[in-house]
Amino acid sequence: MRAVRVGIIGGGSIAKAHVIGLRSLPSYFGAEGLRVEIPVIADIRRTAAENSAQRYEIDRWVTDWRAVIEDDDIDAVTIATPNHTHAEIAIAALEARKHVLCEKPLADNAGAGESMVDAAQSAGVVDSVHLNYRKIPAIQYAKRLIEAGELGSVLRYRGAFLQDWAANPLVPRSWKFEAGRAGAGPVLAVGCHVVDLARFLVGEISEVSAITKTSIRERPTPRGLSTYEVETDVSEMAPVDTDDMAAMILNFDNGAIGTIETSRVTLGRKNHCFIEINGTQGSIVFDYERMNEIHVATSQTAGLGMARVVIGPEHDGGLVWSLGGLGVGFAETVILHMRSFVKSITTGDVEVATFLDGLRAQEVVQAALASAASGVRELVPRHPIATVPIP
Amino acid sequence: MRAVRVGIIGGGSIAKAHVIGLRSLPSYFGAEGLRVEIPVIADIRRTAAENSAQRYEIDRWVTDWRAVIEDDDIDAVTIATPNHTHAEIAIAALEARKHVLCEKPLADNAGAGESMVDAAQSAGVVDSVHLNYRKIPAIQYAKRLIEAGELGSVLRYRGAFLQDWAANPLVPRSWKFEAGRAGAGPVLAVGCHVVDLARFLVGEISEVSAITKTSIRERPTPRGLSTYEVETDVSEMAPVDTDDMAAMILNFDNGAIGTIETSRVTLGRKNHCFIEINGTQGSIVFDYERMNEIHVATSQTAGLGMARVVIGPEHDGGLVWSLGGLGVGFAETVILHMRSFVKSITTGDVEVATFLDGLRAQEVVQAALASAASGVRELVPRHPIATVPIP
Amino acid sequence: MRAVRVGIIGGGSIAKAHVIGLRSLPSYFGAEGLRVEIPVIADIRRTAAENSAQRYEIDRWVTDWRAVIEDDDIDAVTIATPNHTHAEIAIAALEARKHVLCEKPLADNAGAGESMVDAAQSAGVVDSVHLNYRKIPAIQYAKRLIEAGELGSVLRYRGAFLQDWAANPLVPRSWKFEAGRAGAGPVLAVGCHVVDLARFLVGEISEVSAITKTSIRERPTPRGLSTYEVETDVSEMAPVDTDDMAAMILNFDNGAIGTIETSRVTLGRKNHCFIEINGTQGSIVFDYERMNEIHVATSQTAGLGMARVVIGPEHDGGLVWSLGGLGVGFAETVILHMRSFVKSITTGDVEVATFLDGLRAQEVVQAALASAASGVRELVPRHPIATVPIP
Amino acid sequence: MRAVRVGIIGGGSIAKAHVIGLRSLPSYFGAEGLRVEIPVIADIRRTAAENSAQRYEIDRWVTDWRAVIEDDDIDAVTIATPNHTHAEIAIAALEARKHVLCEKPLADNAGAGESMVDAAQSAGVVDSVHLNYRKIPAIQYAKRLIEAGELGSVLRYRGAFLQDWAANPLVPRSWKFEAGRAGAGPVLAVGCHVVDLARFLVGEISEVSAITKTSIRERPTPRGLSTYEVETDVSEMAPVDTDDMAAMILNFDNGAIGTIETSRVTLGRKNHCFIEINGTQGSIVFDYERMNEIHVATSQTAGLGMARVVIGPEHDGGLVWSLGGLGVGFAETVILHMRSFVKSITTGDVEVATFLDGLRAQEVVQAALASAASGVRELVPRHPIATVPIP
Repeated sequence: MRAVRVGIIGGGSIAKAHVIGLRSLPSYFGAEGLRVEIPVIADIRRTAAENSAQRYEIDRWVTDWRAVIEDDDIDAVTIATPNHTHAEIAIAALEARKHVLCEKPLADNAGAGESMVDAAQSAGVVDSVHLNYRKIPAIQYAKRLIEAGELGSVLRYRGAFLQDWAANPLVPRSWKFEAGRAGAGPVLAVGCHVVDLARFLVGEISEVSAITKTSIRERPTPRGLSTYEVETDVSEMAPVDTDDMAAMILNFDNGAIGTIETSRVTLGRKNHCFIEINGTQGSIVFDYERMNEIHVATSQTAGLGMARVVIGPEHDGGLVWSLGGLGVGFAETVILHMRSFVKSITTGDVEVATFLDGLRAQEVVQAALASAASGVRELVPRHPIATVPIP
Repeated sequence: MRAVRVGIIGGGSIAKAHVIGLRSLPSYFGAEGLRVEIPVIADIRRTAAENSAQRYEIDRWVTDWRAVIEDDDIDAVTIATPNHTHAEIAIAALEARKHVLCEKPLADNAGAGESMVDAAQSAGVVDSVHLNYRKIPAIQYAKRLIEAGELGSVLRYRGAFLQDWAANPLVPRSWKFEAGRAGAGPVLAVGCHVVDLARFLVGEISEVSAITKTSIRERPTPRGLSTYEVETDVSEMAPVDTDDMAAMILNFDNGAIGTIETSRVTLGRKNHCFIEINGTQGSIVFDYERMNEIHVATSQTAGLGMARVVIGPEHDGGLVWSLGGLGVGFAETVILHMRSFVKSITTGDVEVATFLDGLRAQEVVQAALASAASGVRELVPRHPIATVPIP
Repeated sequence: MRAVRVGIIGGGSIAKAHVIGLRSLPSYFGAEGLRVEIPVIADIRRTAAENSAQRYEIDRWVTDWRAVIEDDDIDAVTIATPNHTHAEIAIAALEARKHVLCEKPLADNAGAGESMVDAAQSAGVVDSVHLNYRKIPAIQYAKRLIEAGELGSVLRYRGAFLQDWAANPLVPRSWKFEAGRAGAGPVLAVGCHVVDLARFLVGEISEVSAITKTSIRERPTPRGLSTYEVETDVSEMAPVDTDDMAAMILNFDNGAIGTIETSRVTLGRKNHCFIEINGTQGSIVFDYERMNEIHVATSQTAGLGMARVVIGPEHDGGLVWSLGGLGVGFAETVILHMRSFVKSITTGDVEVATFLDGLRAQEVVQAALASAASGVRELVPRHPIATVPIP
Repeated sequence: MRAVRVGIIGGGSIAKAHVIGLRSLPSYFGAEGLRVEIPVIADIRRTAAENSAQRYEIDRWVTDWRAVIEDDDIDAVTIATPNHTHAEIAIAALEARKHVLCEKPLADNAGAGESMVDAAQSAGVVDSVHLNYRKIPAIQYAKRLIEAGELGSVLRYRGAFLQDWAANPLVPRSWKFEAGRAGAGPVLAVGCHVVDLARFLVGEISEVSAITKTSIRERPTPRGLSTYEVETDVSEMAPVDTDDMAAMILNFDNGAIGTIETSRVTLGRKNHCFIEINGTQGSIVFDYERMNEIHVATSQTAGLGMARVVIGPEHDGGLVWSLGGLGVGFAETVILHMRSFVKSITTGDVEVATFLDGLRAQEVVQAALASAASGVRELVPRHPIATVPIP
């Protein structure tokens, strides 16, 4: 099979994950015959482009992403740029009939996301948003349990995504703290993951009430540092206009209720993406920081409470390792997402989060932001679309 | 010192805890000289009254609680009856100048609670509501950490109280499922604990948005069974008009935000009273099911995440055991509350949750119920009172 | 029923537990009609005797334990004195036909233990050693699981009892650090518990290899401080001649193998009494610091790993609380032991650890100490006795 | 820099890990310029060789490993064949002056291991045994803590490696259950990891007492299935002559004591590689199944018990991800080991477990097997070698 030729747009820190994800396919899933090449990487910053190309052994680099999209030899692009640029790049790529993998969140606002979905619907190529947490083997296992009715009817969802990398007020005011470029703070940046998991595992969210908070209202202007490093020069401070904490309560179409909390300033929580789902017959509890286990109550465990299931080949079909308990990390969540993206390109019908999934998450966040402002429970708007069921 | 003579009103399952709590004072805290006698127990059900008296070695039993209140030889009463009867009994007891310990929640509705608080304010005796979770040694330790500024400014509170004893639809429709007698479901029954812990540890709650749900809408009529046992005779079903799940988002006076969730139908959760508090300098995480430990991040643990503190004499002043890790259970939470109640009677100024604390919790629940109905963020009403600070 | 009249011998810190255990029986188990009186307490130290009597509301105190034993009005005694005095007191009490509850370990050496067992065998009264960890509800549940064959044939036992109260070299050299009075260090003091749990749950131990270590070889001479408090005056140091750490490997009669570790100097472990048992069909894992849960794998959980069982009324027969997850602590382990002791006196045939159980534990420890010295795997000697099966 | 050209010998399940490990270096550590090519794979089974080559996109395959070793274009080999073949292949490779990475355990017996070490000493190339658990970021962090004195003097080590993949008696009798090919059971197969971690973190082991057990004495003859799948055809059974459980107690050169347990039949344990180290100033606790955290007590946490450290860039120098809590899995342990192996080849002096480390682990296991047979505490023999300190 001819290799799928992918251009990477954006040479920042997430580009590394994209490279690992794409390049690992033969080593991990050799029997499936997936082949990828990465002929080019683009970054508007010349140094970043050049360095990334050298670092990742990519033959060619460019500073204009349009050069990638216009390249007839390229089949697909991944977009790893700041949120506010996603729409323009993705729509251009779709119009050039490139398959597109866009980093999450889909865009900085739902309106931009709608344009992306509309463009994707008419392009007839594979469009995917990098909501890779669906691909965590424990989450896939939870999905199968729920679909098999092991939890009965779902009554309640709890999703939390708590981090502390921004708890230090000296973490600089990168674009992630600017509404103009990020759209919002963690309510969107990581909230999109827990909203997506809610949709993936429970169903569509109909109504939201929310509150948001910005606990650190100014930060040092960044001076070329990475997003996560503290800035010692505090002579120039810049205002933060994004949330750093949020809380929501939810109603689902199917009658379940739920909560979602997001934060990047909760000390002691590193990547605490926590999911609890309770149904009439059972429950699951998952914490990303211990992603190789999931706690489940089903009719099988009745009288025994929740069982700690350590993930192994019986849960991922032996895709990763053939012995239980060896464990995966963030890399495999990306690798498994990229596998589905590339399989979608080559075979056409594999489950992977789409632009529409990205938009649906964004619509919930948008309703949450509206509720935080209005104090009223808000209906989640849904951009009309030809029938595209939740996978 | 003359023993404090206490009458117990209500011979149901919680009476056992009251007896243990009152009788254990010399054994546990002998050096403090606290002495209690329980001369009488009342229950409207003759058999319950008689059995309780025999079981607990109480000399006398009555079926009319007024006989206890009118007894000049009685110094204090504890009220362990269904919620809708608290106000009448407590107010009568206060008017008879008895010290009163009332089971939580304070009443079935905030209006009744207001009358109780007003009566208590004018009675000049000790009034306490049995919000005993404050007395868990790990919670007392958390309180001291927060007061010492170890968490900095509190930014976020999360309280959850999840049980599953009512997940089985065959658990009978006892008074706990009747709005007329219980006031509400777990949003009040256990929600009062997590609201109280919020107030105790963080401060007053100003605004609430909430949703509630009743997932099991009818249950078998009870036939003399205990509250927690399933009923096999399902020929007669009765409607449930209380919530069995709820979720709230909160604003605090001091700017912190929060969430509270309550349920008695979440399979796999037994008495999962979970507290997380994050501040600008640290965090605490507590789970009642592991009540002898608490997880804390402070400036001391910076760079190391959260430390698991196993509770020992350094945390409770050696009140219970002189060696760390021996552990306490529900009994000690009651014993420690009763210690404070009796000390308040004999010495006058000990910290113990008062009727006002009970009312403040009820007001938050009332606002939550209002918000669940209105879809709007509701202000928490506060019954006016002479200055009574949160301890 | 006439109350059982118990004299307490020894007014140190463990006396508090004895008082709580004996006095709580009506409050906890009222329906069973158990009644106890504590007319007298003895301590060789006049102040301790007097203070204890006052503190615990005991009418009479004496400084000579023989006065308790010779008192015709006393039915039973509990012995809460240093290890090397157990034999003399217990044998005298047995000869006076008093029922005896002796603190663990049974004695300071196996020879003394043998005399106690022989005396008990001929006395025809109830003899019990305070190996109360058997009475932890989670352990009782484990026992039933094993007896029901839920684990299949037991293959492996792991017991550890790790504490850190003596990790500070300034903890004074109390009698617990003197071989002459304690017999040995934690290998005996807490080792007796994990050996007893091995016997209770798995069966008799036939062979032991062991190593021991004394990491802190001298400590300050105690100056009236409690055992667990540090001593600031280090002008006079005394040698420590007991172990502070030990490790054993075990063979059981039934073919299972095992390990036991004990320590009082492992920082971060408070009362980490840890049990793991693996059989051909399942496993259990228990940690005292989280005593209200136990992790079990059985054929029921096959494919799901280990379930976390939160202890509730279904595990203790509703003896303590009628709602799951409320939790017990050290007090209830003593109360439940005292319940069995008193029931044995009044009804004659209740399961409770006997002097023989205490001796069997001691024999294993003795073999371990011998192996530590010899470097050879040692047979565990067994004092011959008329048929007394492990319960 | 010219790429290091590596031939892989052995096309079984662990070959996948070698391929991932070698191929991922530019994607993960691009800035370091490590480049690897895998021109050839060998397997004695023609189908395995051919399939592996196709699966992993390796240009060439051979059935005779000597063809790899004799290939002048090959710089290094990795050996992923059954234990009893390691010595012959490794020694031939060393004599051909190829750098060698040999799977663990180093060999099936210590004698073979000695020959390998001797050959490595004289070859002057890089020799490494795949004891990759050293490379777990949490373990590297523990190493630094210990070297910095944060634990004080180490007093005690506990290592356990418990699995359950062989608990089902229908798991076939593959070579792993044959002493002739495997050398021993889990005491060697996974015991080498926990012995190696003991040496890496604490120091050399001087004496061992041990017991071993074979609980399942026959298994179905394998019929082409993978090692871990059950065999339904039980018409032909074959004897098992390796241990499936073992327990050891240890003395270290530096006075510390320890225990090690290994098993592949403990139900509910998947890859439970558990490490506890206690010193005079602190402790660490690690469980592979939660490899992205480690629990530490140091003087910093004094009074707070053990802190749960979630691994992040501050612990691995940002080698893997730039945000804490994202997590690694088994793949990264191999990738990090391969990084060190390749860096050792290109730069000469990087820490990586050597053949001598492999031999030292084997010597401890050999002493354990001897003690299990003799019942006597055995000195660990040490093959004499020119000064090669533990890294």
